[in-house]
Order: sequence, then structure tokens, then C-alpha cells
Amino acid sequence: MQDPLTKVAGDGSKAGEAPVVKARGLEGVVALDSELSFIDGQQGTLIYRGYDIFDLAEHTSFEEVAYLLWNGSLPNQQQLDEVKVQLRAERTLPPMILDVLRATPEDANPMAALRTAVSALAHFDGEADDMSPEANYRKAVRLTARTPAIIAAFDRLRKGQEPVAPLRDGSTAHNFLYMLNGEEPGPQAERTFDVCLVLHAEHGLNASTFAGRVIGATLSDMYSAVTGAIGGLKGPLHGGANIEVMKMLLEIDRTGADPADFIRKKLANKEKVMGFGHRVYKTVDPRATILREMVEELSEERDARQWYDYSTAIMETMASEKSIYPNVDFFSASVYYMLGIDPDLFTPIFALSRMSGWTAHLLEQWKENRLIRPRAEYVGPRDLKVRPIEQR
Amino acid sequence: MQDPLTKVAGDGSKAGEAPVVKARGLEGVVALDSELSFIDGQQGTLIYRGYDIFDLAEHTSFEEVAYLLWNGSLPNQQQLDEVKVQLRAERTLPPMILDVLRATPEDANPMAALRTAVSALAHFDGEADDMSPEANYRKAVRLTARTPAIIAAFDRLRKGQEPVAPLRDGSTAHNFLYMLNGEEPGPQAERTFDVCLVLHAEHGLNASTFAGRVIGATLSDMYSAVTGAIGGLKGPLHGGANIEVMKMLLEIDRTGADPADFIRKKLANKEKVMGFGHRVYKTVDPRATILREMVEELSEERDARQWYDYSTAIMETMASEKSIYPNVDFFSASVYYMLGIDPDLFTPIFALSRMSGWTAHLLEQWKENRLIRPRAEYVGPRDLKVRPIEQR
Repeated sequence: MQDPLTKVAGDGSKAGEAPVVKARGLEGVVALDSELSFIDGQQGTLIYRGYDIFDLAEHTSFEEVAYLLWNGSLPNQQQLDEVKVQLRAERTLPPMILDVLRATPEDANPMAALRTAVSALAHFDGEADDMSPEANYRKAVRLTARTPAIIAAFDRLRKGQEPVAPLRDGSTAHNFLYMLNGEEPGPQAERTFDVCLVLHAEHGLNASTFAGRVIGATLSDMYSAVTGAIGGLKGPLHGGANIEVMKMLLEIDRTGADPADFIRKKLANKEKVMGFGHRVYKTVDPRATILREMVEELSEERDARQWYDYSTAIMETMASEKSIYPNVDFFSASVYYMLGIDPDLFTPIFALSRMSGWTAHLLEQWKENRLIRPRAEYVGPRDLKVRPIEQR
Repeated sequence: MQDPLTKVAGDGSKAGEAPVVKARGLEGVVALDSELSFIDGQQGTLIYRGYDIFDLAEHTSFEEVAYLLWNGSLPNQQQLDEVKVQLRAERTLPPMILDVLRATPEDANPMAALRTAVSALAHFDGEADDMSPEANYRKAVRLTARTPAIIAAFDRLRKGQEPVAPLRDGSTAHNFLYMLNGEEPGPQAERTFDVCLVLHAEHGLNASTFAGRVIGATLSDMYSAVTGAIGGLKGPLHGGANIEVMKMLLEIDRTGADPADFIRKKLANKEKVMGFGHRVYKTVDPRATILREMVEELSEERDARQWYDYSTAIMETMASEKSIYPNVDFFSASVYYMLGIDPDLFTPIFALSRMSGWTAHLLEQWKENRLIRPRAEYVGPRDLKVRPIEQR
């Protein structure tokens, strides 16, 4: 492998300018400071604003985590009540957004539908282009409140069902499952889903968050930035991986293949096994550890032990054959599947949670904004002259 | 000013890993190789795939430049005819996109409207998620053909007029002005606008292009990437500047202020003068030189000499007071204004042209894809423990 980071000469670098450093894919480059999360890829730890992800998953709700990300500290009871009221007040979609979703073909890619509807939300937000910190905070709440409603409405409309209005109370997790299924979830489903939301809320400068900050750093608005972030999360090298994981598990289930053999064959054919490895983690992703326990519990309770067994066999095979460990996508797939959610909604649900992190990154970006603009090294021809078209 | 580029220790860097380099705003970092354009910020030169921008502006059309960016060489007559046929075939909007635009409030931000409609185009493109090079090339053509139609339809609808269907022939410049105004432009207006499209087509890793490549590098689709790019271009630190330039010129015109005094007052108040300075150019942006000539010609012909006079006075004041030179936004504002285009369409028109460059960057990105994922340096607290909510 070529060294991804080398000093290069030329390219406009002159005395008095910053030295030019080349870093393909920006691996190993620190682009900015952030107080939002810390990932120790060697130790396999993840913290949000000082709190370990295990502690947060066990003791807090998604609403508390969203508040923490936006404000820097966990809420007391009054602050939590306030943010819940704010979220509830924003949960109902503007009628025109339902029209946009009705005009969306039923076979549309759900991430494309979400991207379009979130972009359209700006038209019905009088504060869309108000860049004051107060307005941006309200938009962070609004976007986090409305994203679940968009996903649920899209899914119901494509199944020929009418969207379900949100409840007047209840958590984000409770309301999302209610709006999706038209019936209130049980406490175990709600708590499981809530933990998933906590785990997916924030993860440093991943590609979607980074794209959002690059957009935001032009002083474009929050809708522009999160719309771009949704587009980034859609990619199979990012959030899109969890659908692929579920496809693999379903294929194993359908064909009755031995999971270890199935994986070894894939590896022999040099196929990528989705849900494994990470640019930052060199050991087990701590979120995968928490999700694996949830898969075990759910699969026992729902009498669907096979998902845990397949996943465990695949994990062990990848560890022994390649020393590569599961990431957050690997176990979240089975959790969502056992909660009765369609696989192509897994990435939108990732977005639903990450909306809290994306918006927190934007609030942070705008506190002390600086344009994010690297360079490309030009490797094309020079000194060509346009010839008349007859001579080309 | 703090040195933007310093080596930092820690942050997960271990033996065997790439060294960690810190570069705020990624200034001075080369993120990738590109054959698309070269900017010499010291000399003030810009080339697209080997051709100097002065040569291209004088001797080629937007369609030739788009072909050059996508394919790497200028088209011969047959190739140019082919790409024109392809663009014309894709110019008519899917009816549902017109519905999306009809549902857009008339006071919507035009860049938000463009972002939403371009995102929605994916729903009506059976190839949206086909990542083959052939399908992506066709999408590059399709997006470049449809963007002008979206902008024109949006503008007409908000003025209570029906959208105008594109002509069966004619250039992109000709058709856009026709669809916008409902009447065919004269040859001078067409040629002037065509040169503007050539000048704005491509400019290295600016923030919108970079955002698009970050999104595309997750192997997300072209619609996701260009939707994000539109969001980035919307920002006043990027494409959004040209509206601000026009507001300033109109204010000078309305108040009868002396342009040099007006600018000196702004500078004394530490206000930013839009349309000046550039992260890369340390001298005159060559595009500004070409556009300035166009402003001079147009203002003579249209008996609107004041726009040239104000612009020249502002340029000279900024040079003498601050040694800062105009960028592409400064003179394009007056050109578009004299062509009768509303100021809030200036940035969408930038997007119309840059769509060719964005899509060319995506075709290049996907030839040899690599995830673009820098790191943040964590500067927040550590080792906090979640306390029960009653104790917070």
C-alpha cells in the first residue's frame, strides 16, 4: 500500500504559504476540533461529550443524548421535559410534505425519498435561512422531530396505508414505531429501539457528518447540510451497509447454508463481507458489543434464535480468517429486522438517530466557522491549445 | 494567525499507522488527484484538462466544455453533435418534477427549490442507483440538461407564469434564456451567457465539489452527491456571494453613493466586501478578467454604463486599500443583471453551469474510489459518569 500521507512539492506552494501535505482520502488528517465524540480505535471505546457509550446506552434515552449533543451536558428533569415538549411540538409534518411524499413513487429508494422530503422541509420553515444560534438550535430540534415522521409516512404510503399522526406524548422511539406500524409498541420494543437510537446518534467525522460540515462551513443553512449528509449516509460504504448485512443473513436463512462456509466462500471469491471493519476501529466497535447482546435477548424472546446464531458464526469466522471485527451495521440489521422493520428502512433509521449528531456538529461548526476547502493535485495535461473543431 | 498545519501527537496514532497531521479547514492539504482543472493561485491561471480558461472562453461553447470535462478531450463535430442530441433529449422535465415545483412556495429560496427538485429527479430516473460508468455518464448529461429547466420553471411558476417547454434545438444557453423569458434571446445575450457557463463550469476542489465527492466516495449515487453540492454552493462563503455583490451595486445605484467611499466605509466598519478574495487565488481571478470585459461591452450596449463604473471603482479601491482582487462572483453579478436575470437566480445559474464540473468530478471519483474521511481532534471532557437525573 502506498503511504497515504506524503509531503509534496509544488502545487502553488510558495514561501510564506502553509506547507502542502498530501493525504489520500484524508486518512490521518485532523480537519477540525470537536467536543462531540471521541473514538479510540485501538481500545474500541466511544464517548459522547465525555460519557462512555456503554454508560449512555444503559442509563439514558435518545432524548437525553440529543440534548447532551446539542447542549454539552445531560439534561436535568426540567430540561428533559422541555426538550421533549419541543420535540413533540415539531413532530407533525407540514401538509405539503405529505404531498411531496404522496408524489414519491412507491418504489423510490427510501433514502432518496428522505433526502428529498428533508430538503423540502426548508420551504415550510420560516427560519430556514436564519443563521442565529437560537434559530439553528430550534431547527436541530425540528429536524430531529420530523425525520421519524417522514420515514414512517413514506413507508405507510408506499404500502397503500394512510400516514398515522404522532401521539401527543411518548418518546421518539415510541412514536416512530407507532407511526410506522399504526399500533403502540410494547416496552421492550421501545427500549430496544431507543438504545439503537442512542448508539447511532454520533460518531465523529464520518463521511456523512463531514459532508454536512463541509456544506455548513460555506454558511449554507442546516437543511442544505443535513440533506447532503443523508446523501452521504446512503452510500454502501457508510450507512447503506446495514441493508446488505440483512440481505446476507436472509440468504443464509433461505438457502440453509452453513454461515461459516458461506463467509469463507465469499472471502475466497474476494467478495466484501458487509458490516465488518472500520476506518477508525481496529478492534471491536463497542456499539457492536451492545447490539450483539440485544440481538441475543430479542432472538430468545421472539423465538428467532437463528439470527443470533448466524451473526455469531459469521463474526467468529471473520475474526479467525481475517482478524476483522463487526461494526455498528452488523448487529443493528438483525435488531431492526426482529422489530419487524423492512430492511430498506434500516439506513433511514440510522439517519433518524444521526440527525441529532449531524445537527450538533453544525451548531458546533457555526460557533467558530471556517471554510473547509482542501486542494486536488492536478495530474492532467498542460499547455494544450484549442484547435478548430474541424481539426479535432 | 495560528499555523493551520501542525503535526499532533496522540488521537489514536500508533506505530504502523499513518502519522496524524492537523490542518484546520484542510487548507494546504491535497485530498486527491484530479485531471479536471489546475489553478495557479500565484499566477492567476486556470486550466480545464490542459486548456487555459481564456482559450476556452474565446473558442468553445458550454457543450464543448462539458464534453471535455466528462471525457477528457474536446469533441470533434460528430461527438459534439451527439452530446447536443443527448442534452436535448433530456431537457424536458418529468411531469412530477413540475408538480414538486408547483408545490414549492413562491417565496422559497431558489437554491432550496433547486436542491429539492434535483433530489426528487432521482425518483424518476430508473438508473438513479445504477453505478455503472455508462449509467453515471448518462446521469451526468441528464442532470446538466435538467437543471436549467428546473430553474426556469421555478422562476416562471413563482411569477404566476406557466413553465415554457424547451426548444427542440439550440444550445443550453439559448434554451435556458428562452425557458426563463418565454422568448428567444438575441445572439449577443446567448453568447455572453454561454461564456459565463464556460467560466463557471469547473474549479477544482471548491467546497461544493468537495462535498459532492465526499458524498460520492461512500458509493452513494450521483443525485445524492450533486444535491449535497447544491447545498454547499448555496452558502454565502461560496456561490451565494454573487447575490450579495448585486445587492451592494444596487444599493450604490439607489443611494447615489460614491463607490470608493462606500467601500472605504465598509472596510472601516470591518464589514466583508463580497466578491473579493479567494482561498486559492492570491492575484486576479482570470475569470474576473474575462467577465469584466463582458460587463464593459454589455454596459455600453445596454446603455447601463454605471454597472461597469461602480465595479471598476470598487475593484480599484479594494486593490489599493487591501490588495484584494475580485473573484468570479464580482463581475458575474452585473452580467446576469444586465441580461435581465433576477439576482436570487445568480447562484442557481452558477449551479446550472457547475453541474457539468460536479458530475465530471464524480465520474473521476468513481474510477478509483476511496472513502474520504478525516478525523476530528477531540477537545471535550473525558471520564464523565452518567448520574441519575434527580442528581443533575
